[in-house]
Amino acid sequence: MLKLYIGNKNYSSWSMRPWVLLRQAGIPFEEIRVRFDSFDPGSQFKATLAGINPVGKVPVLVDGELAVWDSLAIAETVAEAWPDRQLWPQDRQARARARSICAEMHAGFSALRTHCPMNIEARLPEVGALVWRDRPAVRADVERLVTMWTGLLRQHGGPMLFGEFGIADAYFAPVCMRLRTYALPVPAAVTDYIERVCSLPGVADWIEGALAEQDFLDFEEPYRTRR
Amino acid sequence: MLKLYIGNKNYSSWSMRPWVLLRQAGIPFEEIRVRFDSFDPGSQFKATLAGINPVGKVPVLVDGELAVWDSLAIAETVAEAWPDRQLWPQDRQARARARSICAEMHAGFSALRTHCPMNIEARLPEVGALVWRDRPAVRADVERLVTMWTGLLRQHGGPMLFGEFGIADAYFAPVCMRLRTYALPVPAAVTDYIERVCSLPGVADWIEGALAEQDFLDFEEPYRTRR
Repeated sequence: MLKLYIGNKNYSSWSMRPWVLLRQAGIPFEEIRVRFDSFDPGSQFKATLAGINPVGKVPVLVDGELAVWDSLAIAETVAEAWPDRQLWPQDRQARARARSICAEMHAGFSALRTHCPMNIEARLPEVGALVWRDRPAVRADVERLVTMWTGLLRQHGGPMLFGEFGIADAYFAPVCMRLRTYALPVPAAVTDYIERVCSLPGVADWIEGALAEQDFLDFEEPYRTRR
Repeated sequence: MLKLYIGNKNYSSWSMRPWVLLRQAGIPFEEIRVRFDSFDPGSQFKATLAGINPVGKVPVLVDGELAVWDSLAIAETVAEAWPDRQLWPQDRQARARARSICAEMHAGFSALRTHCPMNIEARLPEVGALVWRDRPAVRADVERLVTMWTGLLRQHGGPMLFGEFGIADAYFAPVCMRLRTYALPVPAAVTDYIERVCSLPGVADWIEGALAEQDFLDFEEPYRTRR
């Protein structure tokens, strides 16, 4: 069976993407959670991943001899192996657009990622208000998301970005978590989309797992001293 | 015909990847060079891209109504549209590995990218020696590249990373340029690979175009006041 190595569900936004994709697509896999202790060379985390992945990061998908790391490579590999799941849009133009926005997410939105780290369990609206006031780059990232999502939802008619659930929705699911935790101001069409994403069984399962974790990791918690 | 919007050939590492891929694969395209002036909202660069790409960045591949931005999305779209070119390895395991390292490049190697920006025309070995001495993160990035490349060249027997030329080689071609400009110390197997990459007709054409440019852009030149 496929094995998916992931980090903490509360914190690991990159792990969330392929996990939600596989679960929501109904592809069976074994989850191997490698909890973060630190990312130092001597950490338990790095030791566990040493033989699995030369980069020493999660997520990693392992299928027998095959190891795929990085969420985007995993997504392409899964889409190719299960074409019947239609994880990319069938229409060529929509597929190119979906790939473009996923790649944009993969290497971009650094202000949002830096200042609003994923923390599913937390509710930090006051922090969000300060970030929103003081960080124009975060506002620009959110503005881009709003334009992207509202445009796609209008064009494809929802409920997901390209109609039915696909890689793009899995890819932006952690962003939905961030917008919620920090209560960043977005229009109603975006709030509604976030709610629909949170209601997907695959996403709801992940959130439930995140809430069940009791870890508090200082290096993932720039805004709190305790839960 | 396909149109590929690119930036300056001397500086734009992201533009180099799809350009080299298309050229080396023998896929005809029209090159539209949008020279960097600045990346401010009022710049000529942003104005030119305004109707083309919502992100306002290069590269962008345009095929009629279809616009694909981001080099990784372009690579997947091209590989899918021209399966006979075998731009990803045919073997499933090798293909997963190729996708993993391209995605790793796409979101990683930030120390090398920050401290050794691509500058094909320049020769900066003294800068390289200082960077190498003072930046352990750059050394770690190069160490990872050396492990990756020597392992793949050994496994697949060369001359390119997965045997014949493919997306992975196009993806790492700008890295070869950086290693050369800053004369970073790498083993002979890597130097030889870099030479082979530079000798690919598609790469040689790009380099020739870069050398013909006469732009000197302060914001791309952290180490020089003039050519």
